[in-house]
Amino acid sequence: MKPPIRNPRLLIVALSSLVLAACGGEGSLQANAPAGNGKIGELMEARGLSEADVSAALKTYTPTGGRDEYLMFASGGHSGQVMVIGLPSMRILKVIAVFTPEPWQGYGYGDESDALIASGDRDGQEVRWADTHHPALSETGGDYDGEYLFINDKANARVAVIDLEDFVTRQIVSSQLIQSDHGATFVTPNTEYVVEPSQYPAPLGGGYAPIEEYDTKYRGAVIFWKFDREKGRIDKERSWAMELPPYMQDLTDAGKLVSEGWVFINSFNTERAWGGTLEGKPPMESGASQNDMDYLHIIDWKKAEKVAAEPGKTERIAGLPVIRLDTVNEEGLLHFVGEPKSPHGVDVTPDGREMVVSGKLDTHTTVYSFEKVRELIENEDYVGRDPYGVPILPFEKAVRGQAEVGLGPLHTQYDGDGNAYTSLFLESAVAKWNVKELRVIEKIPVHYNVGHLATAEGDTVSPDGHFMVAMNKWAIDRFNDVGPLLPQNFQLVDISGDSMQLLYDMPIPIGEPHYAQIIEAAKVKAVEVYSPIGTNPLTQRVDPYATQAGEERIERDGEGVHVYMTAVRSHFTPDIIRVKEGDPVHLHITNVEQAKDATHGFAIGQMNINLSLEPGEHSNVSFVAEKAGVYPLYCTEFCSALHLEMAGYLLVEPK
Amino acid sequence: MKPPIRNPRLLIVALSSLVLAACGGEGSLQANAPAGNGKIGELMEARGLSEADVSAALKTYTPTGGRDEYLMFASGGHSGQVMVIGLPSMRILKVIAVFTPEPWQGYGYGDESDALIASGDRDGQEVRWADTHHPALSETGGDYDGEYLFINDKANARVAVIDLEDFVTRQIVSSQLIQSDHGATFVTPNTEYVVEPSQYPAPLGGGYAPIEEYDTKYRGAVIFWKFDREKGRIDKERSWAMELPPYMQDLTDAGKLVSEGWVFINSFNTERAWGGTLEGKPPMESGASQNDMDYLHIIDWKKAEKVAAEPGKTERIAGLPVIRLDTVNEEGLLHFVGEPKSPHGVDVTPDGREMVVSGKLDTHTTVYSFEKVRELIENEDYVGRDPYGVPILPFEKAVRGQAEVGLGPLHTQYDGDGNAYTSLFLESAVAKWNVKELRVIEKIPVHYNVGHLATAEGDTVSPDGHFMVAMNKWAIDRFNDVGPLLPQNFQLVDISGDSMQLLYDMPIPIGEPHYAQIIEAAKVKAVEVYSPIGTNPLTQRVDPYATQAGEERIERDGEGVHVYMTAVRSHFTPDIIRVKEGDPVHLHITNVEQAKDATHGFAIGQMNINLSLEPGEHSNVSFVAEKAGVYPLYCTEFCSALHLEMAGYLLVEPK
Repeated sequence: MKPPIRNPRLLIVALSSLVLAACGGEGSLQANAPAGNGKIGELMEARGLSEADVSAALKTYTPTGGRDEYLMFASGGHSGQVMVIGLPSMRILKVIAVFTPEPWQGYGYGDESDALIASGDRDGQEVRWADTHHPALSETGGDYDGEYLFINDKANARVAVIDLEDFVTRQIVSSQLIQSDHGATFVTPNTEYVVEPSQYPAPLGGGYAPIEEYDTKYRGAVIFWKFDREKGRIDKERSWAMELPPYMQDLTDAGKLVSEGWVFINSFNTERAWGGTLEGKPPMESGASQNDMDYLHIIDWKKAEKVAAEPGKTERIAGLPVIRLDTVNEEGLLHFVGEPKSPHGVDVTPDGREMVVSGKLDTHTTVYSFEKVRELIENEDYVGRDPYGVPILPFEKAVRGQAEVGLGPLHTQYDGDGNAYTSLFLESAVAKWNVKELRVIEKIPVHYNVGHLATAEGDTVSPDGHFMVAMNKWAIDRFNDVGPLLPQNFQLVDISGDSMQLLYDMPIPIGEPHYAQIIEAAKVKAVEVYSPIGTNPLTQRVDPYATQAGEERIERDGEGVHVYMTAVRSHFTPDIIRVKEGDPVHLHITNVEQAKDATHGFAIGQMNINLSLEPGEHSNVSFVAEKAGVYPLYCTEFCSALHLEMAGYLLVEPK
Repeated sequence: MKPPIRNPRLLIVALSSLVLAACGGEGSLQANAPAGNGKIGELMEARGLSEADVSAALKTYTPTGGRDEYLMFASGGHSGQVMVIGLPSMRILKVIAVFTPEPWQGYGYGDESDALIASGDRDGQEVRWADTHHPALSETGGDYDGEYLFINDKANARVAVIDLEDFVTRQIVSSQLIQSDHGATFVTPNTEYVVEPSQYPAPLGGGYAPIEEYDTKYRGAVIFWKFDREKGRIDKERSWAMELPPYMQDLTDAGKLVSEGWVFINSFNTERAWGGTLEGKPPMESGASQNDMDYLHIIDWKKAEKVAAEPGKTERIAGLPVIRLDTVNEEGLLHFVGEPKSPHGVDVTPDGREMVVSGKLDTHTTVYSFEKVRELIENEDYVGRDPYGVPILPFEKAVRGQAEVGLGPLHTQYDGDGNAYTSLFLESAVAKWNVKELRVIEKIPVHYNVGHLATAEGDTVSPDGHFMVAMNKWAIDRFNDVGPLLPQNFQLVDISGDSMQLLYDMPIPIGEPHYAQIIEAAKVKAVEVYSPIGTNPLTQRVDPYATQAGEERIERDGEGVHVYMTAVRSHFTPDIIRVKEGDPVHLHITNVEQAKDATHGFAIGQMNINLSLEPGEHSNVSFVAEKAGVYPLYCTEFCSALHLEMAGYLLVEPK
């Protein structure tokens, strides 16, 4: 099955082949090439490649042993995980297990990772998936520093911390204060806080209230999770929150440079519609689209941080000190300004001077001046207050101007040359426009229904430009048919030239990524092995049960059986484990290798156990040997020529 | 970070640039190309591409909207899933959820798929992962027909059936007869049977026996699962099995054409070692490597099928009629022939005339003649019997010859021109050799530690040649560092020319695939939507609870609450669900759209529920509303510009 060849393309191919044949350029290209390569013109014709395709191929192809220039950390959508994708090759280098059990990584099939996942349960209810939305790389001075990655779970209002030292999830936090989020996670310029605003309003702290009391009993909130960089963990004790009106808070961005100390949050449904399609009410999609303006939330977080620390200024809800709305208003921590219409994106410019807002039902992006906003706040120049007492700034005075970008603008990213790139969902295109001149320079079609965009280092104070990825929600006709559930389509675009060039279509086969950040690969310094031998990745210390070669043993105490094992190519010691029916069994396994890539797996049939033991890693797994029987155990990673022989038995003797 | 440029490559690049500049060939290539493309020579230099790289790039790059020529179905290793990869682009088009819950596909987060996964539990013990090894495409006349895919789980001895009409898992079967498998799944030439041999011996049917009684109480077995193509399911009632000695049965292949009706199974550890590293015994890796020869198992399955049907010839164990070893020997269903040394692969040639065996500790592949084997069996020309009474054929008389291929040969695939390709684990290379002449033609290095190989249509009676994929177990230095756990590396090799050409390195980020099959894409005909509206993918019928637009309702009966919902861009009806604390709730949701790619998700926060509703699909999910509260529900697939508004609430009122 050859790629469908459209006529114009055929023509170009034919022409170029002729030209090439005439000048012999391809001949010379061919000269030193290995047999079987075929000449460029022939290859173009055989595969229906245009000259633009050839250029795109050479700009993305990464030869064996070559490295990718950038790493894209993409949310895994409802897979609950995070994808690591290399640019420009667009190859998935890793899927980091975060909220959903993942057996290859032994994540959720051993003691520590089971406990980590369980720590994400909500109010005692087991949750084993997530809808990951916004990954946020840790920042220093508003620039990605490559140390940590944060990611939220919209469905269950949770936040995870991933350590880029080994690309492993270390922590999951949540609070019953809110029941869902969306615009999370975003970080402040020095990662003081990981910001998590709610999306769908609910009674703060959980519990029931009639939907008819939506206006009075339902609320939004924004949580400022305090990040302790030294510990590499969120410190719940030093975290706090702010109550918000029952609008639907959406995309978020932190101010930087001149606007450092401020946070901006989109909102929609200031109509406070809540549906009721079976009860004769309009669906939320129309109920929430009545107003011409919703409210951009402008939060002075440095001021709020002080208020949150003052005695009596907060109320403790679901374990967090919460600044209630009356205090928020008394202290002037929150201001609104109108934003048209059903807005989705608010994106601070790299210099921190302006905020760009897109309205899904507007054809413009609106550019707000932070300087003007601050003056209006200082002068208390309000046009009024919303029903919850929040002061509203005059739209006209806060806005520097608008750019007419096209249909369904969603999200804006930046390059280093003063240009903005805004995704157009309804148009299935991306508009490149000059921020200063508010002038559209160029549009490029994307396939199809583009959501977010990500440019290289795009959320920092110094974007690289170079590459932009359009995160398209629909693929439709881009790939081979694989049944009714289609992949998403990431399209890589070269934005380094005068004109945008589509380079690559990448199918996303596991979940629908919502957002991604792209960091220069050289900034991320991952370890190759765990050292010293016996390190437990989740504690980053030598595990108390770590076993060194020669110290392997089986000990029985009053409670059960402890098995101290080692793994090395190509055997486990011990490889025969003898227990009695009903015994609690605790396996403590250390991979005593230090060679890069010398991973061993450890599985026991029928016990739902699989561990991934990286070089130097120690892992523990406990279970009760409930049924007498003979259970094969073996290494699940092809570690050597005699890997198949790296096996043994768990022998459960009847009582 | 640019790809590391080795000096010779730099030279070539410099040279070619000069030549190109001189002749202007690149100029002409550049002529019609969009701005920002850069000239070929410049691109080569900028990205450190050799001429071979350029050729490889053009042979693999697939432009937007282009289709891949082949689909590779690769086991997902211990992810428990199956990957669908397009060739030559090497893009992952889909990950099919099989044994492990996968929230994006709503697999394991709704009623029917929960039940399907639970049907794979072993002996009442919950199993939520798998170690998938050998995918097998359904065959007609020994050729892939593109209708079904089968995959095994080594860790828990299970087999799954995937329907390629919609790329959805339909069935999981297992039997307590065996406790692990490996050489599964392979199919007979018309998919009469899906063959599953055990790997690690254990008491047949489960239960305990001391490891010291390994020789007498432990056994292997091979299950012949009967496939009912009309129903698209394995028919357990018509399936049967055969007892085998307690060796470790390994790779399997079915005879074809002249050898149709026969099945061949490798084995190792005829020494019957079982380790005991902590008990002063040698580890299995050395204990199992004492003998110069293990036994190739030669099974006459057409004869065995008749015997299995005869009254009194089988014993029912774990729900399967099993032909015990004494009957196996009486009826002459099984013969052995020596195979050197620690063999892994047995691969029948496309013409069905010969079987090629690789020994991990041998430097040769051994070529057996089926004709000779059959004559030896007919003449009962035995050199003896093994301790279990299985007749052993004389090695020298069964073998046509050997080819010295290199260190650590594992697995062999074929092209259409009489050549074989054998992976060399220890050498990290692939040897191409002529089967007739037993002569190595060429070797190509691969990176690193190659396991299986897959050639286009490689297991059929008519391989395509064209492409070969080396499934490398270690990546080491091939990709950017992403922590101690590295991806695997699939390397695409062009085998269509006189000389093999490495085309592409593809990192595998989710599990360690063991084997793959590659089918011409045109053979697979997947549906685009579910029709009629309300179809339940797991029953392939309109669901009894399917809801049409206008028929939405909420009904309460004595047992609980039934909610009949529809999903359409951009709302659910109903979107407000009012229940009482403690109510059993049954949601019946139909996606009433018929537009391709118009998938809706359905999630309820904190309830561990996420459904993927493809166009026309109906799905059911049940839960108990245990805690009073307000639970947002929403569409988890970005379906429209107002997707964020496709939301509502589950309201659980206190008792």
